[in-house]
Amino acid sequence: MNPLREILNPRSIAVYGASNNPAKMGSMQLINILETGFRGKVYPIHRKEREVLGLRAYPSASELPEPVDLAQVVTPPQAVPEIMEEIGRAGIRRAIIISGGFKELGGKGLELERAVRKLAGRFGIRFLGPNCVGVMSSPARLNTTTIARPPMGGNVALVSQSGAYSAMVYPFLEEKGLRVHTTISVGNEADIDVVDCLDYLAELEDVKAVGLYLETVRRPREFIRVGRKAGAKMPVLAFYVGGTQAGARASLSHTGAICGPDELYGGLFSQSGVVRVSDMDELADALLALSLQPLPRGRRFAVITNSGGPGSALCYHLEKAGLEVPVFSEGLTRELKTMTRPLSYCANPVDLTFETDQNLFLRILEVVLSSEEVDGAVLYGVFAPADFMHNIKARIPAVREVEEVLEKGFSDFARSLAEIPLRHGKPLLVLSLLPPGSPTVRKLVEGEIPVFQSARRVAEVARVMTKYAATLDLMRETSKQSSFPQP
Amino acid sequence: MNPLREILNPRSIAVYGASNNPAKMGSMQLINILETGFRGKVYPIHRKEREVLGLRAYPSASELPEPVDLAQVVTPPQAVPEIMEEIGRAGIRRAIIISGGFKELGGKGLELERAVRKLAGRFGIRFLGPNCVGVMSSPARLNTTTIARPPMGGNVALVSQSGAYSAMVYPFLEEKGLRVHTTISVGNEADIDVVDCLDYLAELEDVKAVGLYLETVRRPREFIRVGRKAGAKMPVLAFYVGGTQAGARASLSHTGAICGPDELYGGLFSQSGVVRVSDMDELADALLALSLQPLPRGRRFAVITNSGGPGSALCYHLEKAGLEVPVFSEGLTRELKTMTRPLSYCANPVDLTFETDQNLFLRILEVVLSSEEVDGAVLYGVFAPADFMHNIKARIPAVREVEEVLEKGFSDFARSLAEIPLRHGKPLLVLSLLPPGSPTVRKLVEGEIPVFQSARRVAEVARVMTKYAATLDLMRETSKQSSFPQP
Repeated sequence: MNPLREILNPRSIAVYGASNNPAKMGSMQLINILETGFRGKVYPIHRKEREVLGLRAYPSASELPEPVDLAQVVTPPQAVPEIMEEIGRAGIRRAIIISGGFKELGGKGLELERAVRKLAGRFGIRFLGPNCVGVMSSPARLNTTTIARPPMGGNVALVSQSGAYSAMVYPFLEEKGLRVHTTISVGNEADIDVVDCLDYLAELEDVKAVGLYLETVRRPREFIRVGRKAGAKMPVLAFYVGGTQAGARASLSHTGAICGPDELYGGLFSQSGVVRVSDMDELADALLALSLQPLPRGRRFAVITNSGGPGSALCYHLEKAGLEVPVFSEGLTRELKTMTRPLSYCANPVDLTFETDQNLFLRILEVVLSSEEVDGAVLYGVFAPADFMHNIKARIPAVREVEEVLEKGFSDFARSLAEIPLRHGKPLLVLSLLPPGSPTVRKLVEGEIPVFQSARRVAEVARVMTKYAATLDLMRETSKQSSFPQP
Repeated sequence: MNPLREILNPRSIAVYGASNNPAKMGSMQLINILETGFRGKVYPIHRKEREVLGLRAYPSASELPEPVDLAQVVTPPQAVPEIMEEIGRAGIRRAIIISGGFKELGGKGLELERAVRKLAGRFGIRFLGPNCVGVMSSPARLNTTTIARPPMGGNVALVSQSGAYSAMVYPFLEEKGLRVHTTISVGNEADIDVVDCLDYLAELEDVKAVGLYLETVRRPREFIRVGRKAGAKMPVLAFYVGGTQAGARASLSHTGAICGPDELYGGLFSQSGVVRVSDMDELADALLALSLQPLPRGRRFAVITNSGGPGSALCYHLEKAGLEVPVFSEGLTRELKTMTRPLSYCANPVDLTFETDQNLFLRILEVVLSSEEVDGAVLYGVFAPADFMHNIKARIPAVREVEEVLEKGFSDFARSLAEIPLRHGKPLLVLSLLPPGSPTVRKLVEGEIPVFQSARRVAEVARVMTKYAATLDLMRETSKQSSFPQP
């Protein structure tokens, strides 16, 4: 059984390193466990205090009133072996070791890590870390990290060799509209590693996409096997930073990772069915789109815009990203021309400059996605009235009276818009220059339409989606040709 | 005299196309002129109404009570020639023609545009447009666009062949912390073009950087001359989208622009001393940094981080962007090691993992920038306590009492941090995973420290800054070698 099942769904947790000083990392983690709504039992272990942050504390795991599923440990590294022995004797078989000061420091740290592994082996303890920041599990309402308020409830998982890129990113992910099912910080991977995580996540029904932040892959052969298994079910995206000189140096000092050249890792990812992305923006953006929208069956995209500049920029970036913005057939162009104002350009991009009837977007999108000429669409130029009524309201108070009607109109529009790509099984991506918190973006995101603030980001997302669709096709083909029995 | 001086600083404006219907584009523009705080006179011209949006309206320019500096026209295109004649006879010599339906449509539109040019020539009218969205001028508190609340007051100017990318971007720019001095939408450039704009902006004392959105350059020779003149004084950045097939097609339908291949434009930009950027994100990000920070004198950057992942990502992206993250000398490394915890990695990146004393960042940055070993620094991991105290406050009410003290501490820290790069004449760029509205980012931006939400964006900005510094050196060298007398 994958050890992550209990780590991410414990019935009870023993916490080492929390105290009544809220500035301590262990205290912050305990506070987050309590405030995030975890429903299991939580037992602070403290050598001296009888009570920690309002909970009864225990001097040792051996004195706990019941068998406990998981221990989280954030203490000086020298104390960790003793604690491993203590929890081992107390029957705890899962641990998250937050403490740093192990392999990433070399020398004595390396020895200390070896000692911890040995003790874990002796007692059969499976653990995350050391040198990690904990986990977040939406189904268990469990957040053992120091960062409050993860954007919970989504269907996307994040596995990271960086603590910051698994927990510090919560506000960053939330701003992008990405809600997460699970985040796992694997740290030095002294025991459980990225392969185990991927293996576990691939089995979960409610996870639809996985993002990896990697500085190394310690078991490449198993990574390929498990990557392919996961990749056949859901997109697995990886951001790898070890491929430059300074990147490799930084990673070595960070998690003791030995990095390989960019090209080598590129090959590893292709073999694994893992789609490589170029940064955290692209990772989060693509996870959002992949978790919400159908996959494109090819690389042809329609561009629909109500303004020339963003339309041109979308065309430019899509082509730069290796996608196609095909000229529409005469038939399709003619059909679109009957719908638009006399002189609009309709052969792709479809440019509805200064069109004020937003519902025209719905009809155009319907026609375009119905055609056999594109595999997806990108859209610029839908707006909630609230984003532009500030000065009008100041000057014409009567406008306030119709505000609600206008807003309801946009909500209805967003709902209708969201249905079209799903009905046609082709993805829709939206560009908006409004900020994430704006009424426009909020309502589109509520309707599960992925919205991005720049044309390049839209194109990058379209590229990743197309790449995953092609990867999936390739894997299916390879598995047909293979002489091995397939699951 | 450059005609833009009066267009951007008119004492009085006649507005064609505004009415008492607030949903009309002309009405929205008039409302914005009034609400943005323009101090000059505003005269709506309306054939029938006696009053428009609370102002006295005039049936024709000929009946205006005084000579007027500027007319803005948003009417059906067929009406424009007559209006040009009307304003010409009334002595108005500057115009902004918003109306679309000209060259961008070809055929009859082309003829109409020619007619407008001819009339303008006859009366000596210099004009922006047609097919543009107006201007924003901070010094004049003038906003003639349909978009309310431009982020005014900065020292950055934007000239754009796209209306959306000159006015719809206001919320986008504001979110990035970029305040703008001037935006000019040039539309079809039937008269005033990008070259005129650049020529004008290069003369302004309080403009420190210019961004261009381009689909074409209509006067390449003059562009080179004026680009070099402007570029010698301030960074000029360009985002060009015409270089792909669909991009070119979109641009043709948009502003009637004939585009050239990417490489050709690349050459044009280098000759002009204009630094090319790859998208609007990069344009806005780089303008922000260039308007606030000193230029790097070379390509060597220090990475200072309190977390391994972002440190590795910064190293990776900086190197991918063609910059260097040099290994520090033994001497510098030793000095940094005396300041940090025993086993921190200090040879660049400087990794202060889990350091809670933020003031250490100040001391490290001071030492690093004092050295001769880097030309700039990027930083990850400074936080305002408010961004992380939500759950702690919920659990430990006493913490609320020290909140103010903690916040003041961070404000002081941000101020001290901002002084260091200025003192050393080397740029500082900050990576934060917190959203733009967060206390951390807000206080850094108030301190004029540019903050970006992803490591790639930090690296792209560093690249553009370095590129501009190199361009400047090259231009100085070329001008020395030239046998022509130099200004």
